[in-house]
Amino acid sequence: MSSSPVAPRVTLLAGGVGGARLAHGLALALPGGGAPDDEGRGLTAVVNVGDDTERHGLHVAPDLDTVVYTLAGANDEDRGWGLQGESYATLEQLTRLGEDTWFTLGDKDLATHVVRTAALRAGEPLSAVTARLAAALGVRARILPVTDDRLRTLVDTPSGRVAFQEYFVRRRHADAVLGLTFDGAGTALPAPGVLDALTGADVLVVAPSNPFLSVDPVLAVPGVRAAVESSTARRVAVSPIVGGRAIKGPAAQILETLGHEVSALGVARLYTGLVDVMTIDDADAALAGPIRDLGLDVVVTDTVMGGPAGRERLARELLAAVGHRAP
Amino acid sequence: MSSSPVAPRVTLLAGGVGGARLAHGLALALPGGGAPDDEGRGLTAVVNVGDDTERHGLHVAPDLDTVVYTLAGANDEDRGWGLQGESYATLEQLTRLGEDTWFTLGDKDLATHVVRTAALRAGEPLSAVTARLAAALGVRARILPVTDDRLRTLVDTPSGRVAFQEYFVRRRHADAVLGLTFDGAGTALPAPGVLDALTGADVLVVAPSNPFLSVDPVLAVPGVRAAVESSTARRVAVSPIVGGRAIKGPAAQILETLGHEVSALGVARLYTGLVDVMTIDDADAALAGPIRDLGLDVVVTDTVMGGPAGRERLARELLAAVGHRAP
Repeated sequence: MSSSPVAPRVTLLAGGVGGARLAHGLALALPGGGAPDDEGRGLTAVVNVGDDTERHGLHVAPDLDTVVYTLAGANDEDRGWGLQGESYATLEQLTRLGEDTWFTLGDKDLATHVVRTAALRAGEPLSAVTARLAAALGVRARILPVTDDRLRTLVDTPSGRVAFQEYFVRRRHADAVLGLTFDGAGTALPAPGVLDALTGADVLVVAPSNPFLSVDPVLAVPGVRAAVESSTARRVAVSPIVGGRAIKGPAAQILETLGHEVSALGVARLYTGLVDVMTIDDADAALAGPIRDLGLDVVVTDTVMGGPAGRERLARELLAAVGHRAP
Repeated sequence: MSSSPVAPRVTLLAGGVGGARLAHGLALALPGGGAPDDEGRGLTAVVNVGDDTERHGLHVAPDLDTVVYTLAGANDEDRGWGLQGESYATLEQLTRLGEDTWFTLGDKDLATHVVRTAALRAGEPLSAVTARLAAALGVRARILPVTDDRLRTLVDTPSGRVAFQEYFVRRRHADAVLGLTFDGAGTALPAPGVLDALTGADVLVVAPSNPFLSVDPVLAVPGVRAAVESSTARRVAVSPIVGGRAIKGPAAQILETLGHEVSALGVARLYTGLVDVMTIDDADAALAGPIRDLGLDVVVTDTVMGGPAGRERLARELLAAVGHRAP
């Protein structure tokens, strides 16, 4: 592999925390915070919206916000979501007014949802208001919701089908996941720029996000999976499973209940045909051989990103592995 | 006049601060905080909605909220509006996100607007969500918006026609008011209960609110003025002008620019035919004769209410003046 002297066009498929951290690393590794130049060289994150929800009449987009807040350096890193230095005066008053407030919304975070909701009601697409909010917070990379249309992940559990945030937040992802439905995906259109960002990428990265809850709903939008499969980009995924466990969230349980091996190899099998390179953690070095047997290249490194330095390191290693040295 | 031994049916026409204070006094004077009994004996406030506005996509109803917050004992008495102990984290973040935030909204206050907006979008009438919010805050009197329909006060100024809050808040009511339009009034229906509360009242009180900005838009809803004019209730108004000046707000300037005398007598002339009794301040005792010449009874007392004790005192005096001693 030869290294290219110019910044690559990098497109990231991302969910929440894992996607946001790798997006942050790529933004740090690429020139200008990942701001795309006139030829699209830079970072585009294509983000899951299956976890979007309506709370108190406001449109909440947790994955989009986690990516934007993280790139803005404003994410609450201890919790993994929401803004730093939050207060909860509005939520406490909503409780007092009789609202069911199991979904925590900070005062500053609410401003995002208020602006987004007003924009959507006025007919502005989700992608447009997301770009506006990201720019206002100083984010230079391009953040695209995978679709401007309604797409909602529904979770089949032993006690029935529930909305995603009901499963994830209210019931603390304690239920066994028997199946997933991406309501609206069948008729959703990719947001403007999404397909071009996939087919025109030099490097296509699948973030260490939950394959079922974060990546699958992105791929479920018509045209997206085909664009990834047919892309001429070098395509690299990072396993969200390290040492048989998820870095965060219920990925391990879901792999298990849906009948997959709970390992980086199990993830690699899911991504065969979608990516060329599988990135696994040092702890899983023994799985490199079996993953190569699937026809994938393997990068073995420290995939647990932690803070900004670790994120940038991993991003640079991924880019180097597919022949692009970040300038 | 004889005093009735049972609580009267009291209906108050109210705008913001002056209306809220007198509503509070009446609620304190009547049994059970003014909670209507099975026969409607208690307090009903019919409140202006011409100053309602949409900010950041949220439906804000300043007069309704001032009345509800004041009756709940939660109003910020220093400012005259909003809730006590407010913070502004959401507003500051809205500013950061590029929103134009000249209309101040506290974090707790926002909860009201969020709940109301969600309810209205879901098809709940303004009167229903107002009742729900008032009950949640412990208000026992009945608070009715004059209409559930859209009614917006527009203000003609030397620099053109502007929306009410543009005139009142953004431009700090500094413009000369050349005329007023109550947009939507022509087709608005009185909210459920409004006409009954007017025609079935024992005592009908016009609060010391701005006659043009607060009382006129209430009267502009079809059927309301006729119900007041034909009501068999004893009808009493309190002058918002004391010693030739308004207690609060631009009532004096508007009387002047619209060609009325800036005095309790000027106000009494506006209310001739609507009320039987005019209540004026001790400072205006000299106007009692000219007001009686209009065919009105006159009560001269201290009309500047101040805190709860002064509000209750004035309320009791008004009720006594029309033959109803509060039990």
